[in-house]
Amino acid sequence: MRIGFIGLGIMGRPMAKNLLRAGYSLVVYDKTAPVSDVLSLGAEGAASNREVASRCDIIITMLPNSPDVYEAVLGVDGIAFGARDGSILVDMSSIAPAVSRAISGELQTRGVAMLDAPVSGGQPKAVDGTLAIMVGGDPAVFESVRPILEKMGSSVTLIGPVGSGNTAKLANQIIVALNIAAISEAFVLSTRAGLDPEVVFTAIKDGLAGSTVMNVKVPSILDGNFEPGFRIQLHIKDLVNAVDTAHDLGVPVPLTDHVLETLRELEREGLGAADHSAIIRYYEELAHTEVRRRHP
Amino acid sequence: MRIGFIGLGIMGRPMAKNLLRAGYSLVVYDKTAPVSDVLSLGAEGAASNREVASRCDIIITMLPNSPDVYEAVLGVDGIAFGARDGSILVDMSSIAPAVSRAISGELQTRGVAMLDAPVSGGQPKAVDGTLAIMVGGDPAVFESVRPILEKMGSSVTLIGPVGSGNTAKLANQIIVALNIAAISEAFVLSTRAGLDPEVVFTAIKDGLAGSTVMNVKVPSILDGNFEPGFRIQLHIKDLVNAVDTAHDLGVPVPLTDHVLETLRELEREGLGAADHSAIIRYYEELAHTEVRRRHP
Repeated sequence: MRIGFIGLGIMGRPMAKNLLRAGYSLVVYDKTAPVSDVLSLGAEGAASNREVASRCDIIITMLPNSPDVYEAVLGVDGIAFGARDGSILVDMSSIAPAVSRAISGELQTRGVAMLDAPVSGGQPKAVDGTLAIMVGGDPAVFESVRPILEKMGSSVTLIGPVGSGNTAKLANQIIVALNIAAISEAFVLSTRAGLDPEVVFTAIKDGLAGSTVMNVKVPSILDGNFEPGFRIQLHIKDLVNAVDTAHDLGVPVPLTDHVLETLRELEREGLGAADHSAIIRYYEELAHTEVRRRHP
Repeated sequence: MRIGFIGLGIMGRPMAKNLLRAGYSLVVYDKTAPVSDVLSLGAEGAASNREVASRCDIIITMLPNSPDVYEAVLGVDGIAFGARDGSILVDMSSIAPAVSRAISGELQTRGVAMLDAPVSGGQPKAVDGTLAIMVGGDPAVFESVRPILEKMGSSVTLIGPVGSGNTAKLANQIIVALNIAAISEAFVLSTRAGLDPEVVFTAIKDGLAGSTVMNVKVPSILDGNFEPGFRIQLHIKDLVNAVDTAHDLGVPVPLTDHVLETLRELEREGLGAADHSAIIRYYEELAHTEVRRRHP
């Protein structure tokens, strides 16, 4: 069995390498990024999405957003036009749930099954093979690819039908963004009150305020390090998908709306490629501006 | 050495019992609550705050809010009028940092030292003696009472001068409230999208979205159990102190403002005595109202 792997970015590349190390045969393709390091680990190259699909039983995609996946599957020389009857597309990109369902519907008419299987955990966990993978799709199809997914993630969960993986991912991204905003308001307040943020971190991290976001992000924030990690641009993309989905369903998400605007403001300021923990810089600027207004 | 313990509520009572079990001699007083169970464990009773102070070297207070502490210390028959020169007040209540500093200033003129030492972790950790205790005050005074605090908490941290303990606690309470609101927006959205919230919880709890709030609150939310825990009324009190402190310092806290309004709305609806995890009920009602508006 050969696995196709399309999209060798900051996440896809280490994920593909974990499959190679686990002994799987891979056919890889990326529209723009070089693939030589993956080929040197034993992968075969291909010239298009369509070619990958024609040579593999299972095709994994790891692309930035909904239009990229739509294009890779249904665009010119797309996966849909090369995939054999009975093959499986596992889209591990984080995209809009409605787009997952639409693409799955198109593929179904061609005899191709699809799972949406977005991941959480960022590049370090992609490297370690300890991602959390949230899957939507048919249970039997899920079971058939589960061993492959378990080479990339330590937590692999079938959530429900196609689209459910991405809906769970949106829930995940709402929580991550708001937990970053929460530590931002709290730490800017306590720092402006004269407290040492490192001491505050030590004092509260093991209590009810503790979170993975706090443990992962506060140390780099205190170092003034906003290297991604996870880019503000990508978090904007996820929250736009979240807010659109919420609007479709009639679910008000006022705090998510607010933190999305915060991320957009940071992107306008040129921080789109910074880590999403740079949300705290927005709050630092707000406080700085307010204090200067009061004491001109 | 005898320790005075004033305020035997949902938190103070198990904290006092832990000191008794550790072998300390206690003199206890509560303005309204019965103390017989604490007396039966070996504590002595007293008839006023003043009497407690006159019979003890160290006086601990665990009261609801700033006015209660002010009254217990500086009101009629207050601690200040019974305390001996060289004694120490350890106020473990969660109150406004500015009030901590004001009370400490008054006590200093009478030769009484004060620490503010609010706690986090809720009743279960008060019972287990595993609270997180955030302390403000003089380092030497802190060291002299640290062994006592360690009988009530597993994490005892000196943050800075008097008031710092309560400022750190406000930071803690901002994060807790916003982390609850975050899971509320995410879970109402994913549930309305047809996902099983228990499966979503399993899928995301070990990723970057994971938090102590999620682990502690989601299971009881899924059971429809909003027994406190930590009452909405008390969280309103803490966030009012947080917003007031932020305003004094010129630190905008827009999400904290928003979640405070959410808590106030729930209190208006009669849920003031419910656990703060009932924030999710506000979001459920919002979504319910919106869906009915669209499909009347």
